Amino acid sequence: MHSNYDIIVVGAGHAGCEAAHAAATMGSKVLLITMNMNTIAQMSCNPAMGGVAKGQIVREVDALGGMSGIISDKTMIQFRMLNRSKGPAMWSPRCQSDRMRFAEEWRLALERNLNIDFWQEMVSGLIVENNQVVGVKTQLGIEFRAKSVVLTNGTFLNGLIHIGEKNFGGGRTAEGKATGITEQLVELGFEAGRMKTGTPPRVDARSLDFSKMEEQKGDENPAKFSYLDTEPLKEQRSCWITYTNQEVHDVLKTGFEKSPMFAGRIKGLGPRYCPSVEDKINRFAEKERHQIFVEPEGWNTVEVYVNGFSTSLPEDVQYAALKKIPGFENVRMFRPGYAIEYDYFPPTQLKQTLETKLIDNLFFAGQINGTTGYEEAACQGLMAGINAHQKAHDKEEFVLSRSEAYIGVLIDDLINKGTEEPYRMFTSRAEYRTLLRQDNADIRLTERGYNIGLASDERLQKVKAKKETTAQLVNELKHKKVKPAEVNEKLEAIGTAPLKEGTSLLNLLRRPNVTLAEIKNLSDEISEYLDQYTEETLEQAEINIKYESYIEKEQQMVDKMQKLEDLAIPADFDYGKLSAISIEGRQKLSKIRPATIGQASRISGVSASDISVLMVFMGR
Amino acid sequence: MHSNYDIIVVGAGHAGCEAAHAAATMGSKVLLITMNMNTIAQMSCNPAMGGVAKGQIVREVDALGGMSGIISDKTMIQFRMLNRSKGPAMWSPRCQSDRMRFAEEWRLALERNLNIDFWQEMVSGLIVENNQVVGVKTQLGIEFRAKSVVLTNGTFLNGLIHIGEKNFGGGRTAEGKATGITEQLVELGFEAGRMKTGTPPRVDARSLDFSKMEEQKGDENPAKFSYLDTEPLKEQRSCWITYTNQEVHDVLKTGFEKSPMFAGRIKGLGPRYCPSVEDKINRFAEKERHQIFVEPEGWNTVEVYVNGFSTSLPEDVQYAALKKIPGFENVRMFRPGYAIEYDYFPPTQLKQTLETKLIDNLFFAGQINGTTGYEEAACQGLMAGINAHQKAHDKEEFVLSRSEAYIGVLIDDLINKGTEEPYRMFTSRAEYRTLLRQDNADIRLTERGYNIGLASDERLQKVKAKKETTAQLVNELKHKKVKPAEVNEKLEAIGTAPLKEGTSLLNLLRRPNVTLAEIKNLSDEISEYLDQYTEETLEQAEINIKYESYIEKEQQMVDKMQKLEDLAIPADFDYGKLSAISIEGRQKLSKIRPATIGQASRISGVSASDISVLMVFMGR
Ligand SMILES: Cc1cc2nc3c(=O)[nH]c(=O)nc-3n(C[C@H](O)[C@H](O)[C@H](O)COP(=O)(O)OP(=O)(O)OC[C@H]3O[C@@H](n4cnc5c(N)ncnc54)[C@H](O)[C@@H]3O)c2cc1C
Ligand SMILES: Cc1cc2nc3c(=O)[nH]c(=O)nc-3n(C[C@H](O)[C@H](O)[C@H](O)COP(=O)(O)OP(=O)(O)OC[C@H]3O[C@@H](n4cnc5c(N)ncnc54)[C@H](O)[C@@H]3O)c2cc1C
Repeated sequence: MHSNYDIIVVGAGHAGCEAAHAAATMGSKVLLITMNMNTIAQMSCNPAMGGVAKGQIVREVDALGGMSGIISDKTMIQFRMLNRSKGPAMWSPRCQSDRMRFAEEWRLALERNLNIDFWQEMVSGLIVENNQVVGVKTQLGIEFRAKSVVLTNGTFLNGLIHIGEKNFGGGRTAEGKATGITEQLVELGFEAGRMKTGTPPRVDARSLDFSKMEEQKGDENPAKFSYLDTEPLKEQRSCWITYTNQEVHDVLKTGFEKSPMFAGRIKGLGPRYCPSVEDKINRFAEKERHQIFVEPEGWNTVEVYVNGFSTSLPEDVQYAALKKIPGFENVRMFRPGYAIEYDYFPPTQLKQTLETKLIDNLFFAGQINGTTGYEEAACQGLMAGINAHQKAHDKEEFVLSRSEAYIGVLIDDLINKGTEEPYRMFTSRAEYRTLLRQDNADIRLTERGYNIGLASDERLQKVKAKKETTAQLVNELKHKKVKPAEVNEKLEAIGTAPLKEGTSLLNLLRRPNVTLAEIKNLSDEISEYLDQYTEETLEQAEINIKYESYIEKEQQMVDKMQKLEDLAIPADFDYGKLSAISIEGRQKLSKIRPATIGQASRISGVSASDISVLMVFMGR
Repeated sequence: MHSNYDIIVVGAGHAGCEAAHAAATMGSKVLLITMNMNTIAQMSCNPAMGGVAKGQIVREVDALGGMSGIISDKTMIQFRMLNRSKGPAMWSPRCQSDRMRFAEEWRLALERNLNIDFWQEMVSGLIVENNQVVGVKTQLGIEFRAKSVVLTNGTFLNGLIHIGEKNFGGGRTAEGKATGITEQLVELGFEAGRMKTGTPPRVDARSLDFSKMEEQKGDENPAKFSYLDTEPLKEQRSCWITYTNQEVHDVLKTGFEKSPMFAGRIKGLGPRYCPSVEDKINRFAEKERHQIFVEPEGWNTVEVYVNGFSTSLPEDVQYAALKKIPGFENVRMFRPGYAIEYDYFPPTQLKQTLETKLIDNLFFAGQINGTTGYEEAACQGLMAGINAHQKAHDKEEFVLSRSEAYIGVLIDDLINKGTEEPYRMFTSRAEYRTLLRQDNADIRLTERGYNIGLASDERLQKVKAKKETTAQLVNELKHKKVKPAEVNEKLEAIGTAPLKEGTSLLNLLRRPNVTLAEIKNLSDEISEYLDQYTEETLEQAEINIKYESYIEKEQQMVDKMQKLEDLAIPADFDYGKLSAISIEGRQKLSKIRPATIGQASRISGVSASDISVLMVFMGR
C-alpha cells in the first residue's frame, strides 16, 4: 500500500518515538506503525522522567537533538534536581509528569514532522530477503517496505499479565499482546529470553488523608531538561511520602502463596533494583518499613501512582495491605498492580549501532533489548533511529563512547556484557562520571548531533555561546584580583581563612568551602560584575574550576583507554587459533566479535590475560 | 473488596458516564467499572455530537441535569445549527468535537463527583439471587455488590471486527472484546441478537489538498448545547466537503467479493440510515456521487475523519478508492475503516424505566439495547441511572412520555416496537415534534429533573426566569401598538402589506413573513425596547407567537392521547381470555405487558381493533 519508506519503526513507545523523530528529522521518510494510535508514548508505569543517571540520559538525548527533554519540560507538574548536596557529577534532574499530556505532546510533535507517516496495526512479522530485512507484515496481511526496520516492541511480545493466581495475555493493562515477531526471529536464528517487570496499583486521591504524610515539594527554582528555551515551571504539584509498616507486611505475606513470583509461575527475571513490595519484605525481612511515594498522575486527575508498592499479589491482598498504610485507611483502588512477562532478545546479538548482527538493516531498541525504563528506551531509540538513517543512506555509523555519554555506556554494556535481568542505568556503571554530567551534555554531544543533521543550528549556537562565555568567565576570574583588606572580613564570616596577600577570584573559588555565590557576596562590585553572566554560565565556570583536578584525572584515564579503543581487531579475526586464550574467552570473543581491543576488554568472560595474549599477537 | 454501593455501572461509554453521573448526583454511591480507564467516554466513531434529532436529545439530557451538553460545549471545535432555514421544530444543534478533549473532560467531570468510585477491569458476569441482581463478578474473580446494576457494554459484547476477509475479536479498534455477560444472560432466559456497525478510515490531513474541497465553516454566531453558562466558541475549525465519483465506485467494487457484508460473513444487521459506502454504491447504483465530509479530529491533531466513507472492504481497496477522491490524490491512511459485530438484547425485554423485566434491579442502557449513536446512548444512560437510583431508594419511577421528550419517544419505541436494525433517532419518529424543540427542552424538562434531585437549583432558576420573561414579552407585544403612519413605509420595504389601522406588535409578528428582527427594525424605540431582552427570550417569544396554532394543535392531540395513556392495564391482566383479539395481538400484549392502553396501541402487531376490544372489555 504505502511505499518508498526509508525506515519503518515498529512501536510508538519511548524508543519508537525517538527513533522515528530522529530518522525523520535527519531526512528519512519514516513509517511509524503502532498497535494503538491513542497510546503513542504512553507511560506504562510511573508518571515521571529522569532521576539518578536517567536524568543525565534525558539531557544527553536532548543535547543530540531528541525530543524526550522537550516533551518532559512541556508536560511536567513537578521538578526536582536530585543529589544537589553531592558533587555535580551526581546531580540528577527528575520530573513528575502529567501522563496524558506527555503522551499527547509526543503525538503532536510527531505529527508536526512531515517525514513521519503513521499506521495503526500490529506488525506480525518481518520481510527478510537474503539475510536482509526489507519490510514488515501486519496482522491484516499488509506489507510495508523500507530500507531499514527498527523494532521497539517494549513489553508487548507475547506479554503475559499476572495478578495473584490469574494471568492473561496483554502488552500493558487493557492492551493486547503482540505475537508473531518472536517466533519468526527465533526461526531466523535469534536467541530470545523472557523477563518480567511490575507496576503498583493506582488509587483515588480523594480517598487519601494527606495530613498523615510528608509533603515533598518541587524545587523552589525549578530547572528543566532541555537546553533549548522551554519554560521552567511556575506552579507545581506536590508529591507525598508515607511508609509501609509491620501490619502492611503481615497482610502482604498472607498473599505469598498465591504470588505468581514466589510460586514460580513467572519465569522471567525482574529488575533487581526496582523490586516488588513483596520482594522487598521477603529479601529485607529485617526492615521495618519501606518508603512509599504518593505521586499525582497529572495536573487535574485524582488518579495517584503508589510508587514503591509494585506488586503482583492478588488484588484483595493489595487492597487490604494498602489500607494499613498511614493516610491510606480509606483508600479506594482504581486498578490493581500487576506483573508482566515478555520476550526480549539478549543484546549481545547487536552491533554498536543497535543493528542486529544476524539480519542486515534490522535494528532493535528499548525494552526489547532487555532494558527497563523510559529513558533507557528513549536513548536507544534515538541511536537506532540515527543509525538506521545513516545505514539507509550509506553514511557512517554513529557510535558514542563510554567517555562521551551515559548512552555510550549503556549500549556498550548491553552489547558486550548482555544482561540477565532488566538493565537500568546507574551512575556507578559509568567509569567517567565526573565527565558525564547533566550540566555539560550539550557541550559533550550537541556538535556531534549537529554534524549528523539532527541537532538544530539553534542548539549549536547555544552551546558555542555557552562554551565561550564560560571560558571567558574562567579567564576573567583568573585575572580578577582581590586584596586582603577588601574581603577578609567576609571571608572570616563564612568560615574560611583570611588572605595574607592579594589573590585571584579563581584561587578563592578553588577553596573547598567557598562557592561562587559566596564570592559574589564579597563586594558590590564583584556582585555586579558576576550578574552579567547567566546562571548557566556561572554554574559551568564554577564546576570547571572547582572540579578541575577530577575532570583532568578522568580525562587522562580516557586518553589512556582510548589507545585500546583505537586498536581495531579485524572483523573476521580467527580467535580459534589463539589457544593461549581461555576457552570461554575464545567463545565469547567469537560470539561478540569486538571491533577493538578496548571493547574486547569489557566482554564478561574475557580476562585481562586474554587481552594481553591478544595484544601480543597483534604485535603490541 | 469495595462494598456498600448503591449502583454499579458497567462500561464508561456515553451511556455509562451519564448513568454514573446521574445516580451519583442524586445521592447514590456509584461504582463505575470499565475495561480501560484511559478510554472513558471515548468517541468510537465520528468526533461530533448532536445533529438532526440527536441535537435535541443532547439538549434534553442537559435540561434534565446530564453532562453531555456541558462536555460538548467545553470540547467543541465547530458549532452549527442545522436546518436554520426550516421551522424551529427542525433546528438541530451539532458540533464537531476534539476527540481527546471530549474523553478527558468527561473523565475529569466524573472524578469531581465524590459519589463515584472507579474500577478498571472487565466484568465477566452478574451475581443474581432470587431473580434479582445483587452485584457483578470481574475477570479477576472479584465480586462487587450493589442494589442495582446498569449494563452499558456498547459494542463490546463478543465484539468481532471485520476488515475485508479478516476478522478478529475486539470491542473497538485496538481494544479487547468483553465475554461472559451475554452467555450468562441467555442462560437466565434473555433473548440476545447480533448487530453490526462500521466506521471509516482515518487519514492524515497533511496529505490532503483542501483547495479541491468546499469549506464548511462553523456558524457565525455559534450557539451551544447547555442551558447553563458554558462559553460559546470564539474560534472554530472548518470541515471540508468533497465527493466520491464513478472511479471511486469502480475501485470499491473490485473489493466486493472480499466484503464481509456481501459475502455473508457478517450476520448482524447494520444501521440502514448510516450505511457503509459500499452499501451506498450497491443500493443506489444510479447515484453518480456521494458526499464526503472531511472532519478534523481536534484542535491540533492532523488526524482526519472521513465521514461518509464507512467501510469494511479490504484495506488496500479502501486506500486505492480514497486516492480517487478529489483532494485525496496523495492521501495517507492512519487506520483502516472496519465493521464490528456485537451482541445486543432486544429492548422489548425492558420496562419503561430500562429495568429488565426478567431480573429485578438490572438495567440496560445504550448500544446494548440495539440503538446506535452517542446521543441515543447518553440519554438512555441518564434514564437508567435515574431509575436505578430511584429503585435503590424505593422512590417512584421516572418516565418521560412521547409528548415530553425525544427521550420518551426513543424509550417508548424501543420497549414496545423493539428494533431489528440499529435504532437511531429521527424527528419523524416523534408525533409531537413542534412541542419537542431544541429551544424549549429546559422548559419541558428541567423542573422534572429538579424534582428528582438531578437538575441543580441554578438550572431551575434559569428556566423560571426564561419562562417569566418570555411570558412578559409576549404579553407586552400584545399590548404594544403601532400606527400605520409609523411603520407602513418599512413594512412595504420588507414586502408585507401596509397597515390600515393600528395594531399590536404581536399581530404583526403573526404574519408569516415578518420576523422579530424585522419588527425591531421598524423604529428606534421598538429596537431599544426589545434590546432589554436576551436573544434567548426574543427567540422563545417569537417561536411561541408564530407557531402558536401548531403548538396548540399538537397540545390538543397530546391531551386526547393522554386519556389513553391514563387508562392503566393491570400488570397481571390475562390477555388469553380475550379471544376477540388477534392471536398475534394477544401474544405481543402478553409479552410486552403494556402499562396503559396508550402503550398497548403502539405495540407493533397490535391493531386498532385489538385496542377497541381491550377498551370495551375494560368498560370504556
Ligand atoms: C507493567 C509495567 C511496569 C513497568 N515498571 C517499570 C519500572 O518500575 N521501572 C522502569 O524503569 N520501567 C518500568 N517499566 C518499563 C517501561 O515502561 C519501559 O521500559 C518503557 O516503556 C520501554 O519503552 P519501549 O519504547 O521499549 O516500549 P513500550 O513503552 O512498551 O512501547 C512499545 C510500543 O510498541 C507497540 N508495539 C509492540 N508490539 C507491536 C507490534 N507487533 N506492532 C505494532 N506495534 C507494537 C506498542 O503498542 C507500544 O506503543 C514497566 C513497564 C510495564 C508494562
Ligand atoms: C466501529 C464503530 C462504528 C460506529 N459507527 C457509528 C455511526 O456511524 N453512527 C453512530 O451513530 N454510531 C456509531 N457507532 C456507535 C457509537 O459509538 C455508540 O452508539 C455509542 O458509543 C454507544 O455508547 P455506549 O455507551 O452504549 O457504548 P460504548 O461507547 O461502546 O462504551 C462501552 C463501554 O463499556 C465498556 N465495557 C464493555 N463491556 C465491558 C465489561 N464487560 N466490563 C467493563 N467494561 C465494559 C467499554 O470499555 C466502554 O467503555 C459506532 C461504534 C463503533 C464501535
